[in-house]
Amino acid sequence: MKQTTIIALLFGPDQIGLVSMVSSWIFSRGSNIYHADQHKDTEANIFFQRVEWCPSGDTKEESVAFKEFASQELGMKVQVALSTDLPKIALLVSKIDHCFHDTILRFRAGEMAGQIACVISNHKSLEKEAEAYGLPFIYQPIDDNNRAECEEAQLKVIKSYECELVAMARYMQILSDDFLARLALPIINIHHSFLPAFAGGKPYHQAHSRGVKLIGATAHYATADLDEGPIIHQDVTRISHRNSVHDLVRKGRDLEKSVFAQAIRLHLDNRILIYNNKTVVFD
Amino acid sequence: MKQTTIIALLFGPDQIGLVSMVSSWIFSRGSNIYHADQHKDTEANIFFQRVEWCPSGDTKEESVAFKEFASQELGMKVQVALSTDLPKIALLVSKIDHCFHDTILRFRAGEMAGQIACVISNHKSLEKEAEAYGLPFIYQPIDDNNRAECEEAQLKVIKSYECELVAMARYMQILSDDFLARLALPIINIHHSFLPAFAGGKPYHQAHSRGVKLIGATAHYATADLDEGPIIHQDVTRISHRNSVHDLVRKGRDLEKSVFAQAIRLHLDNRILIYNNKTVVFD
Amino acid sequence: MKQTTIIALLFGPDQIGLVSMVSSWIFSRGSNIYHADQHKDTEANIFFQRVEWCPSGDTKEESVAFKEFASQELGMKVQVALSTDLPKIALLVSKIDHCFHDTILRFRAGEMAGQIACVISNHKSLEKEAEAYGLPFIYQPIDDNNRAECEEAQLKVIKSYECELVAMARYMQILSDDFLARLALPIINIHHSFLPAFAGGKPYHQAHSRGVKLIGATAHYATADLDEGPIIHQDVTRISHRNSVHDLVRKGRDLEKSVFAQAIRLHLDNRILIYNNKTVVFD
Amino acid sequence: MKQTTIIALLFGPDQIGLVSMVSSWIFSRGSNIYHADQHKDTEANIFFQRVEWCPSGDTKEESVAFKEFASQELGMKVQVALSTDLPKIALLVSKIDHCFHDTILRFRAGEMAGQIACVISNHKSLEKEAEAYGLPFIYQPIDDNNRAECEEAQLKVIKSYECELVAMARYMQILSDDFLARLALPIINIHHSFLPAFAGGKPYHQAHSRGVKLIGATAHYATADLDEGPIIHQDVTRISHRNSVHDLVRKGRDLEKSVFAQAIRLHLDNRILIYNNKTVVFD
Repeated sequence: MKQTTIIALLFGPDQIGLVSMVSSWIFSRGSNIYHADQHKDTEANIFFQRVEWCPSGDTKEESVAFKEFASQELGMKVQVALSTDLPKIALLVSKIDHCFHDTILRFRAGEMAGQIACVISNHKSLEKEAEAYGLPFIYQPIDDNNRAECEEAQLKVIKSYECELVAMARYMQILSDDFLARLALPIINIHHSFLPAFAGGKPYHQAHSRGVKLIGATAHYATADLDEGPIIHQDVTRISHRNSVHDLVRKGRDLEKSVFAQAIRLHLDNRILIYNNKTVVFD
Repeated sequence: MKQTTIIALLFGPDQIGLVSMVSSWIFSRGSNIYHADQHKDTEANIFFQRVEWCPSGDTKEESVAFKEFASQELGMKVQVALSTDLPKIALLVSKIDHCFHDTILRFRAGEMAGQIACVISNHKSLEKEAEAYGLPFIYQPIDDNNRAECEEAQLKVIKSYECELVAMARYMQILSDDFLARLALPIINIHHSFLPAFAGGKPYHQAHSRGVKLIGATAHYATADLDEGPIIHQDVTRISHRNSVHDLVRKGRDLEKSVFAQAIRLHLDNRILIYNNKTVVFD
Repeated sequence: MKQTTIIALLFGPDQIGLVSMVSSWIFSRGSNIYHADQHKDTEANIFFQRVEWCPSGDTKEESVAFKEFASQELGMKVQVALSTDLPKIALLVSKIDHCFHDTILRFRAGEMAGQIACVISNHKSLEKEAEAYGLPFIYQPIDDNNRAECEEAQLKVIKSYECELVAMARYMQILSDDFLARLALPIINIHHSFLPAFAGGKPYHQAHSRGVKLIGATAHYATADLDEGPIIHQDVTRISHRNSVHDLVRKGRDLEKSVFAQAIRLHLDNRILIYNNKTVVFD
Repeated sequence: MKQTTIIALLFGPDQIGLVSMVSSWIFSRGSNIYHADQHKDTEANIFFQRVEWCPSGDTKEESVAFKEFASQELGMKVQVALSTDLPKIALLVSKIDHCFHDTILRFRAGEMAGQIACVISNHKSLEKEAEAYGLPFIYQPIDDNNRAECEEAQLKVIKSYECELVAMARYMQILSDDFLARLALPIINIHHSFLPAFAGGKPYHQAHSRGVKLIGATAHYATADLDEGPIIHQDVTRISHRNSVHDLVRKGRDLEKSVFAQAIRLHLDNRILIYNNKTVVFD
């Protein structure tokens, strides 16, 4: 029904005429721009653009040609995707299941421009559930002694499924620098607090103890610095003195689900650019 | 400090290459685009754009030239403004004063790209307050017998102050079709409900009686059809069974102030296009 | 772990000393109040109370005794429940599945003080899904000719499972007055708009067409007047001109899920009293 | 119009029958409870109550009698106020004026159960504004050399106006431990971040630099530990990569105003109890 579009994300040093050069290139190929959004970081003098167009020619060829043009002629860093792409995703889970179910159901409902390729877990708890969803479940127990081998095995699985994104649905393990470097894929993590408040462990306990009146959730790209990666999306909900830690956990689950889902959606819709440990989100 | 930019709002039938043609025109004049945002209503096949650039030549000349180009060569409807423009605004008030104070204080704080030229009221209640703010206060009592003359006088005042916008800060009178036609200026009104719920009078009483759990406020452009004009901005706040109508009025005041202010800000920042009784808001 | 508590919901004409009489009765039985919340509608002169206590004696006997005391000595209407009660619920569904999954998963996660006894549908679409959750699925096709028989069959099912609540998880059929009268159980419905705005069919289309800036969802008790029953909970989310009806449907799903769940939770936690077609929600 | 009520705030070790004993005492005096709300911290085994009643006898006598009863017979800490009380408030300001105007206008609008007695500032900027509002303005310049004398003078002013509350409307000075101890009054401060995130100086700069997607404001009681006092109220608003620090400051102003006002209102309505550096807010 809908035509395939090309979506390009560009960024680089600002220069006069960038919007014109990009749009004229597209026009010169007989194609029509559907959406174009740009942002300029005036302090850093960096130009960011997300442009989506319907190519008149072959989509593959056009997207390759654009990539060449943008990187070589404009000197921009560029990623190009097709609206029909359905990148494969590895879902990392532990025992906690609300983000697991929520994420999978959203993919099944057609909300997401991607496909879950496999579920990887250090616990067997969700094995049957994953299989009921028709998803391969890879059980990979992990402890302080086998971390290196385990990560090795995880890497192999993620590569074998040709995943382009890793989503940590309340996967409660820290990823090593080595794993991150060798994986070389974006990883979206959900942290159950309004970062940078209550970074680290047991954020709901921390929030309860401090007596805050709102709790939050933060989806961010995982980096070597725990809870310090570029923030993609955040939301909060109101709590009161009546709420126990148990209530915060329950209320927080809804936050975690929606914030995590929104971050994955934005990523799969090619709406996010990262620089200086921050995100530009074209929504 | 900041350079003067030109801001253009365009809309018209979609055609291939519009983004390119607009940006190339700007580039060809040696100017640099700061922001550009577009929207396509695919059902109606209408293209909307807000583009802001820093002209290399004389701003006045460039903006006139662009207007000519966009309307004649592209066949678009176009409004052009300068970022340094400070359009004059007539504030219509009655007895209720919270939007009156809030709006004026925001202009004084430098939040708004415009200036309040005069305050027009059908009551004397806010005369001293207006004068304390250094604003001309025009008292124009109105009743069912003198409506025509009164509107005539209001028109004269608004024209004499060269106002480009009328803002109804809880002005509780209905404007006649004739007044609207002859005024021929945008009018922003604030309605104290989440339209289309509780249109008409006493919306807080209606909300209380229906037992809703949220109350709202709606800023819209006034049209001949009461409470039916294009909606600019809306917000809501939570209420409970404990809240009396009196509480709703108090809580609603905060909503009305912020929603009204945001609508005026969006208008003065040239972020709003109207079509089919709806708004496109480039925020 | 937690002790069983008795929860009483009372309402009736206000009279001096009600709080004292209720709390003294409880104290006189050697029991301790955990929570007590009251509300007085000063216009209607009605007193509402939710009181929860840990009985020192047998919970069943105490709750019966309290009911007698409150109704006979205080002249109040009273409902009494135990914190360990897990009322049975009939889930009515059609083809749309997001509230179906969300509701069931919340019960499975232990979020809800109740149990889903059966799923009743006029379509077979969710049969396998229901069975995968281990829930009886009753398929009861309905059309204009068999409505009476169908409702008869539904009634029989609901009674046979001893349900105490019916929850309409986007069940797209109107219930007849006769059905409602004979069922004589509370029914929670989720409407996909911020009622009273956009009552009736296709609310997202109505919202899109009117150009509102927020969309909502409303959970209410179903009554003979469609979309006019007592409102339990409402929420909204922000939309923009960029959102198609399709986007509203997607964004609305999240609202519907959370608003529906919250209404069911409040009901099962015995926090809702109904009067004058409104709700008192002790949260 | 409305009758004077007595409002009592109590807390202390939980014991069986507290609700009954309090309400029976009130009933035994022929008085009727309007509202009663309680909370139990089950971990700390502390009971909290806010109870409001319409005394049949002399309000002053009744409130004294209740205080005696609650402290001596029940062993609770208790504060008693009348609904007609209008405590005096000292407003501390610096140069920043949005909370200053907003707070004063709310008192003038009758939103607040109190009265602003004086404005104290370390700058002359708001002198004329304060006087236009008819408020005494006390200018007390402060620097590192005269802090002790300055605080001495402030204390004298606050005492001379018989203030019962100090509200810091973006007063940018740290109060010494000695000042706090000698003042012995509640002090409400507004911090322009979602504490505990971005405590200390320049929170908007910190937020911008970290790339968060929401900014917040926090009203708390000032204590000797800067930004560590009991939190009364918090709220947040959404921001994006497009927002400069300047935008955050503008958006934050609206948050600061409403959060600060809500905290003052809750305090003046006698809805807040403090314990363990947290607040119980009966709203």
